[in-house]
Amino acid sequence: MIDLYTFTTPNGRKASIMLEEVDLPYQVHVIDITKGDQFSPDFVAINPNSKIPAIVDPDIPITVFESGAILIYLAEKTGAFMPSDQVGRYQVLEWLMFQMASVGPMFGQLNHFKKYAPEKIPYAIERYEKETLRLYGVLDRQLAQHEYLCGDYTIADIATFPWVAAYEFQGLTLDEHLNLKRWFDAIAQRPAVQKGMNVPEQK
Amino acid sequence: MIDLYTFTTPNGRKASIMLEEVDLPYQVHVIDITKGDQFSPDFVAINPNSKIPAIVDPDIPITVFESGAILIYLAEKTGAFMPSDQVGRYQVLEWLMFQMASVGPMFGQLNHFKKYAPEKIPYAIERYEKETLRLYGVLDRQLAQHEYLCGDYTIADIATFPWVAAYEFQGLTLDEHLNLKRWFDAIAQRPAVQKGMNVPEQK
Ligand SMILES: N[C@@H](CCC(=O)N[C@@H](CS)C(=O)NCC(=O)O)C(=O)O
Ligand SMILES: N[C@@H](CCC(=O)N[C@@H](CS)C(=O)NCC(=O)O)C(=O)O
Repeated sequence: MIDLYTFTTPNGRKASIMLEEVDLPYQVHVIDITKGDQFSPDFVAINPNSKIPAIVDPDIPITVFESGAILIYLAEKTGAFMPSDQVGRYQVLEWLMFQMASVGPMFGQLNHFKKYAPEKIPYAIERYEKETLRLYGVLDRQLAQHEYLCGDYTIADIATFPWVAAYEFQGLTLDEHLNLKRWFDAIAQRPAVQKGMNVPEQK
Repeated sequence: MIDLYTFTTPNGRKASIMLEEVDLPYQVHVIDITKGDQFSPDFVAINPNSKIPAIVDPDIPITVFESGAILIYLAEKTGAFMPSDQVGRYQVLEWLMFQMASVGPMFGQLNHFKKYAPEKIPYAIERYEKETLRLYGVLDRQLAQHEYLCGDYTIADIATFPWVAAYEFQGLTLDEHLNLKRWFDAIAQRPAVQKGMNVPEQK
């Protein structure tokens, strides 16, 4: 059984959604990042960068950290949610990288400056709000031409969904990006996504 | 021959270093991001996210954007700088993702707030300087145990090098991270790295 080290955040939920989608049994280990669990020696041995999510798969055995690498690992282990033809596969890798390098970090900075920072700094809030909306636009234009980011539903969508799901928390709307909204609503209805978004279970 | 769309920046240099390392012929197309070339319809057709680098390989034919996806593509095309065993390969993918999701975006935010932003905002400069130094520490600890990030020299190192190379520009030093410094000095001596760092050629 796969061990999943995670918390109630978008990056954690990429991994739990994927595990639900491919229907692999897994055991959840809560790493409470608000209490500093990510800095414990046991967890640092799993991820030297002290971030969730991480998985341990005793089948190999192997440890994988970084949500993007976990998604590739699980897609290749199961043969699911990643096309096998060359062009399709690299398209998924590029949109997965786009999520990892832009959507995740930039939406994350907006969260920080808009919600968590002790001072409200207009320049920084505006910078990351503008970039988030620009990224909504890139996604929206791609989704105007494709049902999901790369045609079929893949790990590129699984990586992107939990970050777009934060739009209300971020004080944003999807109403000006209707292709993105259509995509979001379709994914939100998947039973595996609903289960994965509730990991670790919130009481 | 591969077409490389790039500019004189760390993300662009990941691609040119890799092309030099694997010794594939390529033609450089300068996308001057200070003049807005990245927003031209021709370039947006190649990368809908309007960022360099991107490549077109007429052999397949295929277009790949996002430096991390380009590195995987070229490693798989040539069989170089990526281990073929399962555990080694996922280790490279996780450190590549770590570069794409943390090193690149966070060093990039430090550049912005320390060098380019019209206002000097102490909170933001401190936030990204602290995170950059934390990431130096993660790299340094990994390099205390491995000659390169994943043992042998791989695309994880190629992705990380051009960003660490910005340390002086960022007003930082490697003197407190001696494993990182050793790694940096070793890579800086590779002829392919020296050539790749000078693409596009600066007059
Ligand atoms: N690029 C990483 C980012 C992971 C990440 O930022 N995790 C956050 C929660 S969403 C975390 O563990 N933060 C704890 C900390 O920064 O101390 C991934 O995608 O796995
Ligand atoms: N995650 C992307 C980032 C690429 C990126 O940020 N490129 C910058 C130069 S280093 C760029 O093209 N900026 C132009 C712009 O933002 O308009 C990658 O690694 O390829």
